[in-house]
Amino acid sequence: MILAVCLNPALDVTYTVGALRPGASHRVRWVRRRAGGKGINVAAVLHQQGVDALVTGPVGDSIGTELAAGLDGAGVAHRLTPIAAATRQTVTVVDGAGEATVLNEPGPALTADEWATFRDVFADLAEQAELVTLSGSVPDGIPSDAYGQLVSIAHESGTPVILDCDGEQLVAALHARPDIVKINEHEASATTGYGTGSVDDVFAAAEELHALGAAEVVITRGSGGVAARTGDGRFVATAATVLSGNPTGAGDAFTAGLAAAIVAGLDWPSRLRRAAAWAAAAIPMPTAGELDPVIAASHEARTIIEQR
Amino acid sequence: MILAVCLNPALDVTYTVGALRPGASHRVRWVRRRAGGKGINVAAVLHQQGVDALVTGPVGDSIGTELAAGLDGAGVAHRLTPIAAATRQTVTVVDGAGEATVLNEPGPALTADEWATFRDVFADLAEQAELVTLSGSVPDGIPSDAYGQLVSIAHESGTPVILDCDGEQLVAALHARPDIVKINEHEASATTGYGTGSVDDVFAAAEELHALGAAEVVITRGSGGVAARTGDGRFVATAATVLSGNPTGAGDAFTAGLAAAIVAGLDWPSRLRRAAAWAAAAIPMPTAGELDPVIAASHEARTIIEQR
Repeated sequence: MILAVCLNPALDVTYTVGALRPGASHRVRWVRRRAGGKGINVAAVLHQQGVDALVTGPVGDSIGTELAAGLDGAGVAHRLTPIAAATRQTVTVVDGAGEATVLNEPGPALTADEWATFRDVFADLAEQAELVTLSGSVPDGIPSDAYGQLVSIAHESGTPVILDCDGEQLVAALHARPDIVKINEHEASATTGYGTGSVDDVFAAAEELHALGAAEVVITRGSGGVAARTGDGRFVATAATVLSGNPTGAGDAFTAGLAAAIVAGLDWPSRLRRAAAWAAAAIPMPTAGELDPVIAASHEARTIIEQR
Repeated sequence: MILAVCLNPALDVTYTVGALRPGASHRVRWVRRRAGGKGINVAAVLHQQGVDALVTGPVGDSIGTELAAGLDGAGVAHRLTPIAAATRQTVTVVDGAGEATVLNEPGPALTADEWATFRDVFADLAEQAELVTLSGSVPDGIPSDAYGQLVSIAHESGTPVILDCDGEQLVAALHARPDIVKINEHEASATTGYGTGSVDDVFAAAEELHALGAAEVVITRGSGGVAARTGDGRFVATAATVLSGNPTGAGDAFTAGLAAAIVAGLDWPSRLRRAAAWAAAAIPMPTAGELDPVIAASHEARTIIEQR
């Protein structure tokens, strides 16, 4: 089982309108409500692709209840920790031209007791897992090294970790020596100070992250492909075809593909092919947490891998 | 007890942002979630003013559950009928300049069985009530004379009705001879064809509505005051001071004030004073279903009533 951690889940509400006019009243044509947040997207993609996955995270109040029911409806296994504060909602308004306006509610804060309870649940699940993914922003009220604590707990039971976060949480977590840090080039640049102009800059950032504690580093560059600094050498993965669409969720599909390939025992070139293909296959989908399986299969066969 | 009917309740979500920019991602600064819909606003104002009130209507799914919990939290008595479809949400985005952008989800549809169950609940409650208010839009799936049916059911137990609706439902309900029709001048004009230019036009519309079946007619004119065609004669009520603010919910506060005054045994001039004062006292409040009790008291004493 792959354990996907979602510390800041959200109920993602999507509205379709003809045009969004500030100051006006709008009749919403179409409503979609789904469980969201980066860790939930990872688990949803794994489930869709037939990979055994379970998502864990804190949820509260009626939106939390609806979120859990949404996971049940989608068949995504979960073990959620109840908290007192209300899980947040995001509202995305999509107009007739496909332009999206996003309203992100602030997330709930966790109490110290709730964080301690979550850590106990996580320790139990990490022991049963083959791999853990840690993705996304964190709620208020938890320690600045929360992800670092989870990396250490997973390592106590020998479970490897893919970490996808940025800022203070990333810097603190590097001390716990995560197995794979997977971030995008902008997050890598913000953390290390290296630029995003060339693949050499990106590998320099990857080396810096390795020196700071990440055993292996994978940096995604959008349509520019992927740079990976691994124990088996340096690789660049490039998509055979670049698709247009909605990039939200592509990073989570990448993490899901990487996790699935590791658990399947694939080598680094094959891991990067699968991860890049799943990310590409998420782009044409209207919402995060889904991918087009036909595109995933065709891209996996055609992604170009170069050793550097 | 005053029975407030809310056939199309909503969970009203208000977001505060700095500025609303279509196509951008926004961090919401402040979130408020409250039970809404016109009948709920009427009951909430009555409860706030210490008048015994109960709200009834159909609710479904997790938003319906949250709506009921919100009424419990506010201390508003309710007897709600469960339905299969999900209660709607509205999202209002208020920017730094106070401009409001509203997103109204389509409401749920009721099945024939659910409507029959609601009517039975309503008949039971109407028998215990001193007065019934029927306010607002109706969900899909119910008959075009739904409000007319409720007027007839209330009259079977001798309970008088204030009706606040428009369009097809209003025209159909007039056949059932509602005791008081309370609408605004635009709704009166759309139904009767008379203009909104002068108080004479508005009284002509009131006479037409009376001829069509409304025993008494009260037409609100925003800052232009109120015209009432009653069994005791024609009256015009004018506020002593016109306040600026958010007019959403002022009409429901008016209905609440009118209902409270009738149950208190007041005459028409006193009823109009109270109703106009409660409407004025709702204007400065940020959300519907609330009023400023100090303004309500001071305006009630100073509203000017003329007989025509």
